[in-house]
Parts: sequence; C-alpha cells; structure tokens
Amino acid sequence: MSTEANHDIYNRPPGPEDIRQTARRIGSFIHQTPVLTSSSLDLRTGSKLFFKCENFQKVGAFKFRGALNAILSTPEEVLKNGVATHSSGNHAQALALAARLKGVKAYIVMPDNAPAVKKEAVAGYGARIIECKPTLAARESTLRNVVEETGAHFVHPYNDYRIIAGQATCALELVTTVEGLEIIVAPVGGGGLLSGTALSASFFAGDTVVIGAEPAGADDARRSLLSGKIVMPDHPRTIADGLLTALGDKTFAVIRRHVKDILTVDDREIIEAMRWIWERMKIVVEPSAAVPLAVVMKYGELFRGKRTGIILSGGNVDLRHLPF
Amino acid sequence: MSTEANHDIYNRPPGPEDIRQTARRIGSFIHQTPVLTSSSLDLRTGSKLFFKCENFQKVGAFKFRGALNAILSTPEEVLKNGVATHSSGNHAQALALAARLKGVKAYIVMPDNAPAVKKEAVAGYGARIIECKPTLAARESTLRNVVEETGAHFVHPYNDYRIIAGQATCALELVTTVEGLEIIVAPVGGGGLLSGTALSASFFAGDTVVIGAEPAGADDARRSLLSGKIVMPDHPRTIADGLLTALGDKTFAVIRRHVKDILTVDDREIIEAMRWIWERMKIVVEPSAAVPLAVVMKYGELFRGKRTGIILSGGNVDLRHLPF
Repeated sequence: MSTEANHDIYNRPPGPEDIRQTARRIGSFIHQTPVLTSSSLDLRTGSKLFFKCENFQKVGAFKFRGALNAILSTPEEVLKNGVATHSSGNHAQALALAARLKGVKAYIVMPDNAPAVKKEAVAGYGARIIECKPTLAARESTLRNVVEETGAHFVHPYNDYRIIAGQATCALELVTTVEGLEIIVAPVGGGGLLSGTALSASFFAGDTVVIGAEPAGADDARRSLLSGKIVMPDHPRTIADGLLTALGDKTFAVIRRHVKDILTVDDREIIEAMRWIWERMKIVVEPSAAVPLAVVMKYGELFRGKRTGIILSGGNVDLRHLPF
Repeated sequence: MSTEANHDIYNRPPGPEDIRQTARRIGSFIHQTPVLTSSSLDLRTGSKLFFKCENFQKVGAFKFRGALNAILSTPEEVLKNGVATHSSGNHAQALALAARLKGVKAYIVMPDNAPAVKKEAVAGYGARIIECKPTLAARESTLRNVVEETGAHFVHPYNDYRIIAGQATCALELVTTVEGLEIIVAPVGGGGLLSGTALSASFFAGDTVVIGAEPAGADDARRSLLSGKIVMPDHPRTIADGLLTALGDKTFAVIRRHVKDILTVDDREIIEAMRWIWERMKIVVEPSAAVPLAVVMKYGELFRGKRTGIILSGGNVDLRHLPF
C-alpha cells in the first residue's frame, strides 16, 4: 500500500532491548495496569489465572501502548502534517490520544458501523473522523485519499514493528509481575498484541507457552497458522468486533515462529466468558477481551493446574447494546 | 423486636480501639480493596476523587465486613443453631458466606422481588432462603417465625454495633491509604456503612467531613437527620435497591452526631453516575454504589478542588436487567 511509507525505526522484529527501550519510552505516559486474580474463576477452570487488565489502560485498551510508541519513536519532521489510520475502534482512540499528547493532528478512518462509544471517544480526543464502509477495501481507499490530501503519516494498526514493540510491553509487565507463568493466552485479530506477547514471553519468560485466542467466526489467523500462509478473513462474523482483521506479514512471521497454537471459540462461548468476568470480577471488558478466558473454559484440560496469564485486551463497550 | 437478643459484644458505639481490633479480627478473611482514581471523572467533577472499591470485596459488597465481624465476635454457644437475617441482598450473601466460613447454618429471609443474581449467590453459599413479601413487616414476621422454629441467632443487617464496627473498617482502610481526604461520601440505607464511615473518619482522620448520599425516592435518612428523629420510609421507590431500608436507633445516633449532611439524587442522576463509572473506570458497580458520585456530580460546588473519598459499596447487578 503506497501510504505505508517506511518510517518504522526497526527493519526487523523488535528484540529484547528494543522492547525494554520501548517500555522506558512510553512508561511515564501509560498505566502499569494491575494483574487481578479470581478465586471463583480459578475454581471454575481448574487453572490458576492471572488477568492483565488492559481494560484499565488509557483509552481503555492495550492499543495505546503501540500507538504511543509509534508516535514517540518517529522523527518530528515525519509527523508535521499529523498522523492517520484506519481502525474499527481502539487503535483509533489510541492514536488520537497519542497524537494529542504529541501535539499533532490525527485523521481517523472508521467503519460507519463502529460502536458509538468508540466514535465519541475518538472525537473527544480531538481527532477528525472520516467514515467509510466496513470493508478492508473501503478503509484502505479512504485512508489513501486522506493521506494524499493531508500529507499525514500513516500508522498501521498492527503490521508495524513500532506497534508490535509497544504491545509487547504488556506481556513484559505481566511476566515481570507474575513469576512462573506456564501459558499466556492473548486474543488475535491483526496480530499486533499476539506477536508482541509472543516476543516478550520468549525473551523474558523462556518457558512460557503463548496461545492465541480467536473467534470461530473470524478464524483466519488459525487457518493462516495451519496453512503456513496468510489467509484473508472471508465475511467474518463475530461479536468480538476488535478481532475482525487479517494478519499482516510482520505479525504473521512472528506468530509462526513464537506462537504454539491458535484456538477458537464461538460467540456463545465468548459471551458466557464475558459474563463470568463482569459478574465475578466486577470489571467491564469488551467481547474481544473475553475470548482468551472462553478458550481456557472450552479447552480446560490444556490449562488445568497451570499458572495461566490472560490478557484482558480492552473494556470499550457500548452499554446500550450488551449481549446479556 | 423479640428476636433481637443482645449478643452484641459492645453496649455502645465502637470506639477507635474496637474498630482497630475488628480490622485485625476480619483482616485475613476480607480483601483489602483497592482505591482507584480516574482522571476523566476528576475532570468532569472538578474534585480529586478516590474510589474505595468494595465492589471487589468478597460477596461483591462491603457487607461482608460487618457480617463476618458479627459472627467472629460472637460466642460459639450462641451460634450453635445457626444464624438468621432478613436482607434485600448483599447482607444476605455476606452472612451466608461468613456462616459457611464459621461452619454454621444460615437462614436468609429475602423479599421475593430481590434480584435473581443475589438469590442465586446466597443459595450458592449454602444458605437456606425463605422468601417473603417485600415489606418491612413481612420481613420481620417471617424472620421471627424462622428464629422461633430453628433457634438461629439473628444478625441484624445494620442496627448492630458488631456490624457498624465491621463496616467502619472500610473507611479505616481508605483514610490509611489516602492521606488528607477532606470529604468522604458514603451511601445510606439503614446506615450501617454511613455510621461506620463516620466513626472511622472522626477517629482516624479528624478533619474529614462525612456526607451521606441517598436516593430522592427513599430519602428517609435525610428527613430523619433534619427532623431529629427516625422517619420511616413511605413507599420508597428507587433503582438503588440496597438503600430502601429505614435507619435504626444505633445507626441514627451515630449519624446525628458525626455526619454533616445527607444529600439526595434522583434515579436519573444515579443511572448517569453509574454509567460514568462503568464507561470510564471499567468497573461494575450496582446502582446503590453510584449514589455518592451522583451527589458529587449534582452538588459540584461543595466538592470542587477537594480531595474526596467515595465508597463504591458494591457490584452485584443482574446483567440481564441494566438501566442503560
């Protein structure tokens, strides 16, 4: 894509020192989110669960880590006409806030069916929203127009090593806080969080297995991992609206190398897991964030007796449209 | 009430050493709940807010503190036939779990319109539920029958110094965690939490003003404070279903002496505050717990620029019936 000019500071997947440096770069602007436990969910699953609460992150999702790292690691000259992106939601808010902190303009291409609460939040951070049809083609062509008109710098939602390094700081915090994790489960959409998680686990907690959790209705990442090449989503349908996108070449390469498996759950299982989290943990998470717990509940035998980290990726839901 | 045999270990409101002793007695069984802050709610209110998260307490509400203290401070001989109470919800769960920890039976009289999620939780803790009509008279007569039949020991939901001392440990933790609080706002139903909060504030944070927050549709505590005698609720109607009950003589005496004012908010304001907490803080609180923030939002001038503690009293809601 022509708008994807390469201002990525890395020309390879971030290494351990890159991730540590990223953590220092963004550390004073992000929340070091808490890790919560739940005796009733441990009882329900037979696992010992550690929930990394990125729903408490700024903008309500892990995405702020990557977006902020992209902006803070990019030369000011490149950012002088602002930044632009397309996003179904959380990356949009994340880039909008990161741009405001840096004092540059943000242009956000959003599908017209994005949740109202996410659009309101993006506008609240002072970004300009450009709506488009909810297809990848429409997003990309609209974004291309925006970039041509404004000269803004495109920050991809996930297929960018600056973003991957930022998302990797989440698992770095998790494995630093909780010793001896045997498994970490992270949701997978475009793969920014999953690839970052896998890198941090392999660098900073070598024996920890990383598993991706994906909606059955958008299982392109699982099929990509099985087939060895990127499979595009075919009319994906799931309540986990943050996980509809395809893998990118950069995220896929990391995932192939460092992720053991990707397991899928259907929407009923996702909603059930989401309800457990809300009712028992008393915290608000979005459907995408409940996918890892749904995987642990469905494939219980893999996790029984294991110290399992779960990335609760975000908490941005429209309270007027809940699935309960 | 004849069932209210006096096994209260105190014959006067608990003093500072009583509350400290209570904190030690229950300390290893309760959660020392976190205090959260929110920059967006600070911005919205102009206050500096510290939220004491009793929605994360065991059974999902502060009530576990008092119920556990009542059971742990009472001679085993008195408890040999079990314990009994009437409660619209959270005290029921609290006494049920405390009884299970102590290994005694629990008989819980609940109004037949109590939220399903609360009834299920009580049953889940192994207590026996006896349903009655949702009036104070029906509760008391049903409870009297249960006590006569079983010989169980009645633990009042709030008008009991053991309960007040237990609830007081919540504000003790808050003022120990956060220095220099100028105001604490707590919800008021029967007054157990508010009186305990007021005692701890006066003993352990002498300059801190305590304000009660009450639904306008159940404003008997405000009218009691204004008139100088206990006013009974007259067909109370509010979404804050934990705050429907009347003050007791013990809670009222403490509140008259130590609470500066009781302010009211209507249900629309309560729901709006609840939505802010869910959306911005990403935590689940019940309507009763949102009443203090609703007061801060409504009477903004009283709180502007002040370090304000807010007791988020509980998080037990029926997710199938939300007011958004």
